[in-house]
Amino acid sequence: MQALPGFRDFYPEDCARRNHVIETWRSVSRRYGFLEFDGPVLESTDLYRKKNEEGAEILEQLYSFADRGGREVALRPEMTPTLARMVAAREKHYRKPMKWFCVSNFFRHERQQKGRLREFLQFNADIIGESSPQADAEIIALAVDLMRAFGFTAEHFVVRLSDRKAWMEFLQSRGCDEAACRTVLACADKLEREPAEKLNAKLAPTGLVVDDLKAFIAAGSPGAFAPVLEALAARGLSGFVQPDLSIVRGLAYYTGVVFEIFDRSKSLRALAGGGRYDGLIKGLSDGAIDLPAIGFGMGDVVLGHLINETPSASEKLKAALAQTSDVYVIIADESRRAEALQIVQTCRELGLSTDFSLRPAKIGKQFQEAEHLGACHAVLVGQEWPQVKLKHLATRSEEAIDHAALVPNLKNIKLR
Amino acid sequence: MQALPGFRDFYPEDCARRNHVIETWRSVSRRYGFLEFDGPVLESTDLYRKKNEEGAEILEQLYSFADRGGREVALRPEMTPTLARMVAAREKHYRKPMKWFCVSNFFRHERQQKGRLREFLQFNADIIGESSPQADAEIIALAVDLMRAFGFTAEHFVVRLSDRKAWMEFLQSRGCDEAACRTVLACADKLEREPAEKLNAKLAPTGLVVDDLKAFIAAGSPGAFAPVLEALAARGLSGFVQPDLSIVRGLAYYTGVVFEIFDRSKSLRALAGGGRYDGLIKGLSDGAIDLPAIGFGMGDVVLGHLINETPSASEKLKAALAQTSDVYVIIADESRRAEALQIVQTCRELGLSTDFSLRPAKIGKQFQEAEHLGACHAVLVGQEWPQVKLKHLATRSEEAIDHAALVPNLKNIKLR
Repeated sequence: MQALPGFRDFYPEDCARRNHVIETWRSVSRRYGFLEFDGPVLESTDLYRKKNEEGAEILEQLYSFADRGGREVALRPEMTPTLARMVAAREKHYRKPMKWFCVSNFFRHERQQKGRLREFLQFNADIIGESSPQADAEIIALAVDLMRAFGFTAEHFVVRLSDRKAWMEFLQSRGCDEAACRTVLACADKLEREPAEKLNAKLAPTGLVVDDLKAFIAAGSPGAFAPVLEALAARGLSGFVQPDLSIVRGLAYYTGVVFEIFDRSKSLRALAGGGRYDGLIKGLSDGAIDLPAIGFGMGDVVLGHLINETPSASEKLKAALAQTSDVYVIIADESRRAEALQIVQTCRELGLSTDFSLRPAKIGKQFQEAEHLGACHAVLVGQEWPQVKLKHLATRSEEAIDHAALVPNLKNIKLR
Repeated sequence: MQALPGFRDFYPEDCARRNHVIETWRSVSRRYGFLEFDGPVLESTDLYRKKNEEGAEILEQLYSFADRGGREVALRPEMTPTLARMVAAREKHYRKPMKWFCVSNFFRHERQQKGRLREFLQFNADIIGESSPQADAEIIALAVDLMRAFGFTAEHFVVRLSDRKAWMEFLQSRGCDEAACRTVLACADKLEREPAEKLNAKLAPTGLVVDDLKAFIAAGSPGAFAPVLEALAARGLSGFVQPDLSIVRGLAYYTGVVFEIFDRSKSLRALAGGGRYDGLIKGLSDGAIDLPAIGFGMGDVVLGHLINETPSASEKLKAALAQTSDVYVIIADESRRAEALQIVQTCRELGLSTDFSLRPAKIGKQFQEAEHLGACHAVLVGQEWPQVKLKHLATRSEEAIDHAALVPNLKNIKLR
């Protein structure tokens, strides 16, 4: 029996990789002063229906069902609705702006393809309660520094920065109503992937053609990002960011700056994406809470591909995974097992990662196991008791000491 | 809108508590040489049907549904079937014994009651491929040291140790067949909770009465645990363990040592439980893989109640949560925001948790925010540029230094 298609088993080596990604996300976010939160895996299906239009892709891919109590429930496909729900319920408890992040698993019934799984991990970060471009720059700087913490440089990735407001102003100047705006943005999102002919057919009711969209993108909108770019320049991060109005993001709710991170060779899907959504919390709370917000998500699947393809990132991962065991206690004389167990316990109480053989085994086999585990030291317990041997496995140097003198010696190991 | 009943929102303060529990589980397991693994949240429903008899409580509480592809799938209610599936698929890759743990979320459609939620976290640890009592002692020692790491002592909890084998020998000596054994064990599991009259009615077909069970429990079975107790004594852990044949565990698959951890006042449900299940992997792999195994689980819900009720554990939690921010950069002169941003970036690149105001604010308000965040140092950037003030917030001592001299000073902060 296997895992379901699109779902993953995390064997210890996979789990260590996953934890490296999670720990990198966490440590950089904490440096940025973001606080971690999380929500339930299962939510009321209504929470997702409310935010999305009928027929939206995210609803089509929802794992939704009736529970034993007859409630319509769904496995979370994204975090923003949960975040908006939580913020609306308790926002008065928190100083603004709220800088929150989470590392959670999400579920979408996707067609099987590279970079897409049905259960995936995603990092999300949001700044809630601050509308200034300083918040936009803070969130983009976090995205850049996350990528750098994985070992990527400006050679490997770029943040493509766009502005929904510039798009809306352009479209309104061309007489587009709300429905036409939605159509145009959906087409702009597919400019790189679908042929012009097909897009022109979709654009027909809007009075625009693909070339109009391309002209708008090419002209740029110098004013829109100026303060964001300036704040990023002050941080020394200009080299990672590129204004690019061809980025529009698929979702309807964005209201300002939007961005996506791509590998420089563009061989992969977006690594991260997000933007400003100043009306969403108000909408989801039926107008009760009105807070501006900006946020982004970064999944673990495409990121994992890029780590594999990028030597500097793979090496960083490899270094983080280097298996380290501190002590292996070798029982050279089975009649001394009780004494050996006492030493194992002492080592562990000192915080040392310590292992030993659960069954009688030849000394050579026990040393092999110590090397396999990458143990730094071996403690040999045998006929010389109360003397034991303390052996440094890399240098093969050893000394015989009284077992009572082990603790001070082990404390030094801990400080290594 | 709220979370579904039985599901939890983790606001930052809740999430920090949760992470403290997770990190404690992880760090002790690593000291014991256990490797972390995980599996998918969603599995084929068959995986759970296979292990459990028709009508078993765990199947009655399963979140099970048909996905968009028509597959019968279920939210995992426990880890053992996933573990057995993963081990059966790849056991040849791993040296024995395998010492694995996981920290995962599980789902059961439980009736609402204290200590029970519908989504909960659970730590699981298993030793696979070793049948000796040394493995039993290793897993029980891990359970004890997890509890101690939370700040509990022998005053607060006890491991009640029993043996399914002793029970089976007793029942066979009394002529019980397999069905009768199941009935008796189910009744033994409820001795403390259901009246004797009711249990005697259930026991009728087995030819035994409640008093027979009580007599067997009272007589004890001195031989059964001797090597386990001896190995625990060698580790200095005798004071945490108490042989007690009244523990039988609900599940059918246990074959040897079983145990549960309770708070000493018995005011709560079991904090952890597990045992030896030597036939389960063979059964789940249709006989392909035959490996002995022992494991246990510890959930976060009852544990959380006991932490709250126990001062030594609450204090340990509180110390772990003490909010620490390293640096708050105060922008005393808004025209120096770019310079301040550069300092923020430098601090973060040094690994310091650093924050600042995203909008112009009075100096006093910025200092307030720094104190609210528990920042250790403030860096004041203003008209004196290129001089800045470095202020230690606890002692209120401050010095004016050139901004270029900040880095060496900040490196010292990091070492504090």
